[in-house]
Amino acid sequence: MPLPLPEIPSRIVAAPMAGGPSTPALVAAVGDAGGLGFLAAGYKTPAQVADEIAEVRRLSARPFGVNIFSPVPPTADPEGLSAYAALMRTHARACGTEVGDAMHSDDEFDAKCEVALHQRPDVVSFTFGLPSAAVLQRFRAERIPVAVTVCSEAEAREAQAAGADALVVQGWEAGGHRGGLREDDPASLGLLPLLRLARGAVDLPLIAAGGLGDGAAVAAVLAAGAHAAMLGTAFLRTPEAGTSPLHRDALTWDRPTVVTRAFTGRSARALANDFTERFTPHAVSAYPDVHFLTSPLRARARAHGDAENLHLWAGQAHRLARDAPAAQVVRDLTAEAATAAEAVVGLASRRD
Amino acid sequence: MPLPLPEIPSRIVAAPMAGGPSTPALVAAVGDAGGLGFLAAGYKTPAQVADEIAEVRRLSARPFGVNIFSPVPPTADPEGLSAYAALMRTHARACGTEVGDAMHSDDEFDAKCEVALHQRPDVVSFTFGLPSAAVLQRFRAERIPVAVTVCSEAEAREAQAAGADALVVQGWEAGGHRGGLREDDPASLGLLPLLRLARGAVDLPLIAAGGLGDGAAVAAVLAAGAHAAMLGTAFLRTPEAGTSPLHRDALTWDRPTVVTRAFTGRSARALANDFTERFTPHAVSAYPDVHFLTSPLRARARAHGDAENLHLWAGQAHRLARDAPAAQVVRDLTAEAATAAEAVVGLASRRD
Repeated sequence: MPLPLPEIPSRIVAAPMAGGPSTPALVAAVGDAGGLGFLAAGYKTPAQVADEIAEVRRLSARPFGVNIFSPVPPTADPEGLSAYAALMRTHARACGTEVGDAMHSDDEFDAKCEVALHQRPDVVSFTFGLPSAAVLQRFRAERIPVAVTVCSEAEAREAQAAGADALVVQGWEAGGHRGGLREDDPASLGLLPLLRLARGAVDLPLIAAGGLGDGAAVAAVLAAGAHAAMLGTAFLRTPEAGTSPLHRDALTWDRPTVVTRAFTGRSARALANDFTERFTPHAVSAYPDVHFLTSPLRARARAHGDAENLHLWAGQAHRLARDAPAAQVVRDLTAEAATAAEAVVGLASRRD
Repeated sequence: MPLPLPEIPSRIVAAPMAGGPSTPALVAAVGDAGGLGFLAAGYKTPAQVADEIAEVRRLSARPFGVNIFSPVPPTADPEGLSAYAALMRTHARACGTEVGDAMHSDDEFDAKCEVALHQRPDVVSFTFGLPSAAVLQRFRAERIPVAVTVCSEAEAREAQAAGADALVVQGWEAGGHRGGLREDDPASLGLLPLLRLARGAVDLPLIAAGGLGDGAAVAAVLAAGAHAAMLGTAFLRTPEAGTSPLHRDALTWDRPTVVTRAFTGRSARALANDFTERFTPHAVSAYPDVHFLTSPLRARARAHGDAENLHLWAGQAHRLARDAPAAQVVRDLTAEAATAAEAVVGLASRRD
């Protein structure tokens, strides 16, 4: 039997957004408003993750989750990585900076799992792959429910078979990294088909993510069988989020988003800019090596207000993101979802 | 004031599927079951379109629509087209056949509009671009409502400003051709974000299309503000559809779909096969020139049961398509939508 998820009165989940945006303040505010917030352990030290968990608990008595990046195998294309590093070196020098060290890393996976096992958040989610059976068993033994991120029907089956308690089903529309079990994902399923295919394949609660910008979209995924709706970009402009001012502003741009490996070596959706246009065709699958490679370039861009060289993660509905307190966003989304749901019942019952 | 669409008791629309699938029998069966069917004028002669309209009227008293391809400008890349034609010639000879004549054509647009103006279907929809103001005015004068296919918020605004009475909003998930105003569409919006962005931009009724495989997905788009849900692939396996046996069977495959210009010179979603894998990287934007170029190759593939060289149009939810009479599909989708809608109201009203 899968372990139950914590209750989510609003059915709204704030997605874990590594790299700054998902602060303890955001997680606490979402929780207090009847949502479920997620801390993002990615790129932090285990001690920082423990501190953030403690901070959420100081701020709120509500349940919350922690997201951990599963380890990713080393790149299968070291020569491609070298070539990309050479390109980046030239670009970095032209920008007056240097590249970082393109090293592989497991982001201290084991130590972060230990933190989670001891600090006991109400749910732990994993992206970039299935943890080992041993790790999953330890969370099970501690009665901490585990959600696994999937992007296809086959991944949904695989995660259920491995013992996941819930799934985050991430549609192609989602901002930031594609979080499924594998990097190579030819089907690129939009959220609605993914949700319906996964719903037919597994019995677990499905948390729907990807391109959800308002409450009507939340109602839509609940109608399509989701247990809850996960929104990331929708919270990026809240004052509680740790989003950089440059990124915050860019979300209002009328620009397309693209899926690119150019910034980190793993597919992620970002606002199109000079960097994505120039380097997406050359980028390789080498995560997190490319993340470290481009890190100084991106730090420089942030410091200099250079949005054309920054990774501006954004889902497809980014222009719907609101500059309002997180609690207000949760309340507004919930009210909009209720209105949308009432409208659909009227429509559906007109049949015969 | 926009002209009103015909009533669609079930809120289910059968998408126009050019090239065979959308028969008068399918359109009539969908209409009789409380849906709205569309004939597909594409690739037919004006006389055939007139005959099909007459045939639908013999079979059913219910409203129906006709879809017409708007004229597409000649390719901007004649050299690319020549290079692709050379590739195809080699491939055709290896398959024991020849290529067709890569000619440009407007698919007899004016004559088909005349047929529609005189035969007066209950709605006319356009794909591949906005008709001229003069054409739109003639349909308006005849009180025939016009729906225009769009794939972005900007296209939605443009179509409303031009005087469209309704929009077909086609998400990235959709099978077959991308039908929006222009071929270059960097945003590739999934249906839910597209629907919400379009809903915020225009007041017209929105018919949501793309990857809708069952009634829960229909309920989802109705919750997200659609006036009706348009499904194409979901009807491809009905006995009334003119789908080839090879295509019918392929829809059950567990294969990804891809968006490719390889078959026709315009982006369209098809099941991945040898042809898409081999030729997508080389394909050019040159419609319908490439359609005519590859036509004998595809005819040979169909005749020889060679699914690896056929254009197997399919939306992302293709595995949900049912082998059942069209009227049954409409009834089942409607019942599933009602059930899904009831569930969502329960969920949404739990808030406080």
